[in-house]
Parts: sequence; structure tokens; C-alpha cells
Amino acid sequence: MKTKLKAELLREMHRGIEPLLLVNAWDAISARVCEAQGFTAVATGSAGCAAVLGYADGQKIPQAEMLMLVAAMARAVEVPVTADVEAGYGDAAATAQDLWRAGVVGMNLEDYAGGRLFPIEEAVANIKAIRAAVPAMVINARTELYLVKHGEASTRFARAVGRLNAYFEAGADCLFAPGVSDAETIGRLAAAVKGPLNILATVGTPPIAELKRLGVRRVSFGSGPSRVALGAYRRIARSIRDMGTFDALTTEAIPYAEVQKMLARG
Amino acid sequence: MKTKLKAELLREMHRGIEPLLLVNAWDAISARVCEAQGFTAVATGSAGCAAVLGYADGQKIPQAEMLMLVAAMARAVEVPVTADVEAGYGDAAATAQDLWRAGVVGMNLEDYAGGRLFPIEEAVANIKAIRAAVPAMVINARTELYLVKHGEASTRFARAVGRLNAYFEAGADCLFAPGVSDAETIGRLAAAVKGPLNILATVGTPPIAELKRLGVRRVSFGSGPSRVALGAYRRIARSIRDMGTFDALTTEAIPYAEVQKMLARG
Repeated sequence: MKTKLKAELLREMHRGIEPLLLVNAWDAISARVCEAQGFTAVATGSAGCAAVLGYADGQKIPQAEMLMLVAAMARAVEVPVTADVEAGYGDAAATAQDLWRAGVVGMNLEDYAGGRLFPIEEAVANIKAIRAAVPAMVINARTELYLVKHGEASTRFARAVGRLNAYFEAGADCLFAPGVSDAETIGRLAAAVKGPLNILATVGTPPIAELKRLGVRRVSFGSGPSRVALGAYRRIARSIRDMGTFDALTTEAIPYAEVQKMLARG
Repeated sequence: MKTKLKAELLREMHRGIEPLLLVNAWDAISARVCEAQGFTAVATGSAGCAAVLGYADGQKIPQAEMLMLVAAMARAVEVPVTADVEAGYGDAAATAQDLWRAGVVGMNLEDYAGGRLFPIEEAVANIKAIRAAVPAMVINARTELYLVKHGEASTRFARAVGRLNAYFEAGADCLFAPGVSDAETIGRLAAAVKGPLNILATVGTPPIAELKRLGVRRVSFGSGPSRVALGAYRRIARSIRDMGTFDALTTEAIPYAEVQKMLARG
């Protein structure tokens, strides 16, 4: 499928009957596993991807290494891929162009890096620069206000709405407020923002059906899925260490032949 | 720790009271998780690593990409790392030098590639070339006879022993016969080979305690651990798809802060 068509498809997925579900992958094979379960798009998780190559979260990974991994993920699947590229690694518009060339049709963009919340004008300028550089890119603009508990709690909601709506006016396709997990705030946020709202599903977030009822249009999971996979690995490593048995290899693993078949698809 | 010291340490681990347990990792963070459980060395699994970048098993991944990933794994941990580099990607001695420069002190070497079992002289020459190029490299020489069910079944045991002992004479430190999983053959093989025997633990392989009793000196798990991790991911993806719930993120994931702490170690 042409890259531009994939982008339109991904954009359209924010307007469906059901919220767009993005069970974030972190490497090529997890992207394939996600696609094989019938999900209509694959999102990368920046923390999960950075960990693959040994980097902590928060723009520690060099842009080129993140791009290499995300490109491998895009090659591995047919469905649209949207990449979490943190705050864009310096030049967000250049990163957008690199992503597009790699067949990645969506990107997250944060308004915070290195402990600094960008002034709203700077965040808006970044979004406009991406839109100008790659007109068809599906931009998911994210405010870190809730995640980093920025400023006065009592004004946070109004400031988040102000930022997200400015990002929407600047050309963002979707608006993301990670760190909001209570139903009441989610509902108010969905009503107050002018574009589709993305919520990060994590510990304590309402189930998908309630998120849908509250008006959420996109649900993603961040590094959660990659940490579940690592948790399973740790569990079998411990059972091998402590009991010398490895039953999980039979009962929980995706069989070798099935993994190879998924990889041979391309 | 100096690379050479790490190599000596890894070599020594084949002579301990307990067999060397290598719960194969596939990327930097899984290597860190393995190390954090107290395992004394980390082995990479070639199928698991290749899948990270979207390649099927069997030397499909370019040497440079495998090296990049394995190097990231070696940087992520303090313990010795031994890499599964299939049949060496063409020039096994050059691959050994690249690995050593990346701080990788052990390597597997197969006697089979592209559907062809190497004549014993060729396999022996490869091992000698590695030993000459990197004198301290811990070489795990592997015969594919059992895995690919090569030739007459009735002569396979004798041929495997002949090959493995030739590999030991050529300078291999450990001898690997994947595809052997019945206790009787494992015991006979351990008695017949002149060096430490590596067995691949998979479906139907006896538990570690029995492998030890049979004389096995090293137990590895191939792509099994990575496929358990992928199985956990598939399970939560399906529960999100079918039920809209994501309890596993709370109950099974390694917490975000814990993963970040592991990555910040370096």
C-alpha cells in the first residue's frame, strides 16, 4: 500500500465507531504479532524501543538508532505504523521526513524534553514545521502537563486544554494527554478539546468500553505491553534458576514455526 | 571488567559444580533482566535477535545488523556475553574479531548454512580460523546433524561425536548438539565427547537437575525465552481486543521505574 494511502487510513481510524486501539509494539516481531491479532494499526512505544537498544526513556537514544528500529517495524507490517519519537530528537520536522521515507505515517510529538516544558509557541511551531515538511503525516500532539505534574494542579486542566487546542489549530490530528486516568477528568477533557483525544491506558485507567463512552477516540498503552513481555521473561528465568524447570516454553511460547511464518510474510 | 578476563570467566563457567545456565536474551533490556536475576552470563539467541529487526532465522539478517544488536546487549550488562552468530555470516573469523571489539567474549558456530552441512574439514578450518584470529574467544561449536536430521539415523550419533570431537581438537571450548532431547542419547553424548556438552532445553528436554546428572555442562534455551515474551504480549493484545481490559499491565509487567533503573545502571 502507498504511504500516503496508509496515512489517510490511519487518520480515518480516529473517526471510527470504536476508539483506535494501539497496543504498542517495541520491535519488528512484536509489531507483526500485533498486526496478526487483527489490530488495524501499529504504534511504537518510545520507552520500549529505547530499551531494546539499551537506552533509558527520555530522548537518551540517538535519533538514528530509534529511526533504524522504527523503520524495521514499518517494514515488518502492512498496516499503518505510528512512531513515538518523543520530542522529535532536536529537529522534529527532519525526524518527520526521515520517518515518512521509512514508511512511517504517524508520529507522536511531546511538548517537553530534558526537564523543560516548551513554551506553547515553541510547541506550536514544531507542529507547524512537521505539517509543512510532511503534509500527510498523522500528528499526535502530546502534552506532558499531567505526566510531569507541571505547575498548579488547580489550573492544569485549563492549561492542558489550552495547549491541546492550540496544537490542534496548528495542524495536529490527534491530542494526547498521558497521565490522565480518572474517568471524570477524561470525560471533561474529551468534551473540551477540539480534536480526537488519545488516552494512555495504564494501571487504574477505566476499561476500553468506558473510555469510549467518555468520548476517547484513541487508546494506547505506552511501554506497558513491552513490560508485560519482559515480566514473562523474568518469570521463566526465575523458574529456571530456582526450580530448574521450563514448562513455560511449552505452554506460553508462540511456537518457533509460527514466529518464523510471521517473519516470512514480507 | 577487561574483555579478556570476562572470556576466562566464561570459559571457567563450563567447569563449575552446576551446569552453566544461559536463558537466552534477544535485546539489551532482556539481557539486563537476565543479569539482574543473578545469571552469571548472558547468551544471545540468533532467532530471537533476528526477529527484533524483522528477519527470519537462518542467516537472513545481515552481519552488521546482528552485530549492532549484540553490541548493544554487551554494553547493557557487566557479565560475559556469548553471541549466537549462526555460521558466522560468511567470514567467521572476521565476525569473531568484530564481536571481540564489541566486548562479546563467546560465540556459537554452526556447521551448516543455506541448506548445506559443511564438510568436517571446512567446519574445523572455521574453528581454527576463529581461534587464530581471537585467541581468547570462548567458542561453542555446534553440529546441526540432529536438528536437521541429517543422513542415516543409525549413524547419526557416531557422526555427531566424530564432528564434535574434531571441533574440540580444533580449539572449541564447548560442544553443542541441539535437537537431542532424550535422556539416554544426552547421557551417551556427554560421555563420548571430549569437551563440555551444551544441550538446548526445549519441549521434552529433561529438567536441569537430570541434565546435570547426565553430564551436561551448559544448558541454553535458544529462542524459547523470546517466544514466551511474545506469547505474553499476544495474550494481553488479545484480551484488549476481545474484552477491552488490560489487567496484565498491573499484574504481570515489570514496573516502568524498575525497567528504567536497570537501564540507568551503565
